[in-house]
Amino acid sequence: MKIERKASPALLPTPVVLLSVAGHDKEKPNIITLAWAGTVCSDPPMLSVAIRPTRHSHRLVDAAREFVVNVPRAEQLELVDLAGVWSGAEHDKFAELGLSASPASRVEAPLIDECPINIECVVRHQLALGAHDLYLAEIVAVQYDEGLLDGHGRVRTQRLAPIAYVEGEYWSLGERIGTYGAAAKASGRR
Amino acid sequence: MKIERKASPALLPTPVVLLSVAGHDKEKPNIITLAWAGTVCSDPPMLSVAIRPTRHSHRLVDAAREFVVNVPRAEQLELVDLAGVWSGAEHDKFAELGLSASPASRVEAPLIDECPINIECVVRHQLALGAHDLYLAEIVAVQYDEGLLDGHGRVRTQRLAPIAYVEGEYWSLGERIGTYGAAAKASGRR
Repeated sequence: MKIERKASPALLPTPVVLLSVAGHDKEKPNIITLAWAGTVCSDPPMLSVAIRPTRHSHRLVDAAREFVVNVPRAEQLELVDLAGVWSGAEHDKFAELGLSASPASRVEAPLIDECPINIECVVRHQLALGAHDLYLAEIVAVQYDEGLLDGHGRVRTQRLAPIAYVEGEYWSLGERIGTYGAAAKASGRR
Repeated sequence: MKIERKASPALLPTPVVLLSVAGHDKEKPNIITLAWAGTVCSDPPMLSVAIRPTRHSHRLVDAAREFVVNVPRAEQLELVDLAGVWSGAEHDKFAELGLSASPASRVEAPLIDECPINIECVVRHQLALGAHDLYLAEIVAVQYDEGLLDGHGRVRTQRLAPIAYVEGEYWSLGERIGTYGAAAKASGRR
């Protein structure tokens, strides 16, 4: 038995990330927490982030056309929540949250050194959809904490502890329950 | 210490969903598993899905301009993997995976009755980004399994068991580690 609820952003789980962006003119760089993000293309690798036009970071992204998407750890949840609720117009989030702005490789935006994955992005498209503007950005470089990669440069996913967003709640990941294509291979049917 | 790896779709975790779409002409409806999906706007509620132009479902979505995003349970992992690897050109996935195509409320695409959340979508924008085409779709209705909602129509998230995608692996969710805004409220600082 199904129950219809009014249309809402019901997709889940979505990733919880920290977007860092350079300051405009003499402003400081800023950080904003986002859950409305997604992968949108494999080649070129691209992701999307949705930001409300009222947010301080929206103006900074509009000016810079570049940003870094930083994947935080579950243990960083407190600062992740604060970075989403506070406004960069009133808070120097790097300083107040005790985070280090390190130089990125391919963009002017700083990366958050304390986050284990830093995805450097250049905006390619922008669409005004309503409450949010959508930025489609090409991934131009990815930085990983040294201990996250094995000798072949593959991510040791068991060492990750990312945060997922589910209906206004933050969730940790549980366990690896499968690998892409394994069930299909085991079925012996193509 | 950071290590740079070549640009790749590094965002994580992303949602694992089953997209269902009506058949074109006399074809059967189809199902495709996607992890390149995301929320892109709150009002109107919208989501994105990225589909390779070579996929059978791509042609069906192009013809119908409507689809349903079905959120599966972790226990459905085997069929989720099969629906991603198999092609709708060779498999009647509803029949072969033992799934029930039920009528949706606002779109012609069928919903997958066995999935606890069914998000009915109408395509508003389409962008050719490269390996994937991106569809930005408005959410026009959402169906929930009866037992998922409490008396106020809110989702009982503890009863959900969605699947997350992390670097080619399927992961279960762990536990609720926080609620949006709670840390900011507890800090006493706005």
